[in-house]
Amino acid sequence: MHKLVLMRHGESQWNLENRFTGWTDVDLTDTGREQARMAGELLREQGYEFDLAYASVLKRAIRTLWIALDAMDAMHTPIGLHWRLNERHYGALQGLNKAETAARYGEAQVLQWRRAYAIAPDPLAEDDPRHPRFDPRYKRVPAAELPATECLRDTVDRVVPFWNESIAPAIRSGRRVLVSAHGNSLRALIKHLDGISEEDIIALNIPTGQPLVYELDDDLRPLRHYYLGDEEQIRAAMQAVANQGKAKAV
Amino acid sequence: MHKLVLMRHGESQWNLENRFTGWTDVDLTDTGREQARMAGELLREQGYEFDLAYASVLKRAIRTLWIALDAMDAMHTPIGLHWRLNERHYGALQGLNKAETAARYGEAQVLQWRRAYAIAPDPLAEDDPRHPRFDPRYKRVPAAELPATECLRDTVDRVVPFWNESIAPAIRSGRRVLVSAHGNSLRALIKHLDGISEEDIIALNIPTGQPLVYELDDDLRPLRHYYLGDEEQIRAAMQAVANQGKAKAV
Repeated sequence: MHKLVLMRHGESQWNLENRFTGWTDVDLTDTGREQARMAGELLREQGYEFDLAYASVLKRAIRTLWIALDAMDAMHTPIGLHWRLNERHYGALQGLNKAETAARYGEAQVLQWRRAYAIAPDPLAEDDPRHPRFDPRYKRVPAAELPATECLRDTVDRVVPFWNESIAPAIRSGRRVLVSAHGNSLRALIKHLDGISEEDIIALNIPTGQPLVYELDDDLRPLRHYYLGDEEQIRAAMQAVANQGKAKAV
Repeated sequence: MHKLVLMRHGESQWNLENRFTGWTDVDLTDTGREQARMAGELLREQGYEFDLAYASVLKRAIRTLWIALDAMDAMHTPIGLHWRLNERHYGALQGLNKAETAARYGEAQVLQWRRAYAIAPDPLAEDDPRHPRFDPRYKRVPAAELPATECLRDTVDRVVPFWNESIAPAIRSGRRVLVSAHGNSLRALIKHLDGISEEDIIALNIPTGQPLVYELDDDLRPLRHYYLGDEEQIRAAMQAVANQGKAKAV
């Protein structure tokens, strides 16, 4: 039996401001750092050890991982960074406030952009300075693979190959793996692992900063999964994520 | 022309207490963290960017790298960790105070242990809990390669293969590389790069937290090298390192 631990990064500055973030490289808030520290403490207290960790190339996921590994006294854990673990690219919505966007376009449209499986927001223009092709961290990524917007299906399509080619072989070779990533890249991975339908994945909310443990059999089929930590706190964190698309959300 | 940047970690708790550290996983002091931040600021101000960074598996080198990359707004830089970049293993001296050891054995003996090229202190016993074979971070290292003590020659012998097999090919492929390591693993690397004799390497002191730039030709032969930052500060930092073996050192 293998254990895989998934962590959604703690609160970021734009989570706090309720803005669509996507690939924007926003940092954690002090609350987000504290969430990461608590996640690391929890993993340490419960005896978790890792041979390998993965994160996206976005600093909110990397800092979450650094802080958690530091709290576990495991800074020597090798870290693999990959753009395929990045948050879903939000296209032209990146930077807009979710509540303002909901007030203007209606909650239904925002919910569709946020949660419809196959409908992507308008893409960033090719010459938009926010386009990932201008960011040196993606200079080794073939231009055709770099998104200018994504629906969740697109995110699934680029996360799953990384699972198949990197994470799954590492787990099969006996390595204990920790993944620090984002709400939608983790939903993409969980959809694949649990075989969740395109309809049902829409309702799945992953709380920030709560380690999520997957127990997998030798063929990496999930046996069960559970969050570490306090149940009440996890429910509240999930509800907070679900509320972000509503017009009255702060 | 390639540029390689070497960084010796900032002040650690045992640098401060003037104790032989070796492979003991001691953390940075607040001063050490500040030195790392300043090194990162300096690299950022001077326009340095890196495609790849390396560190030992000891947290003082890793934290120095993390802090410097954070200050450069380059947390997404891939990091390769390897035990071959660890500090020289100090054998049974690990944990002893340098000034006390000098007062007891004489400065000449301490200087010999610290700086003789081919004389290693007594090894840790095989059943000593400090022996690296009990540390899970080395569990994939063949037992015959794990040192229980080292002279500088031994350190050179295990650093150079890592240079040849990992760092040098990365530089040749066009990657801009930053290495965060230790006084003696960096001396070992510099001895190799500059072809320094066994006698002359003894007098070479590398200041903590000062980025050291090597300009290399296409065959990775050094063209020139220089420290970034204030000259007076660098001289003072070098002298502080040279003074550590003296009985009167604080």
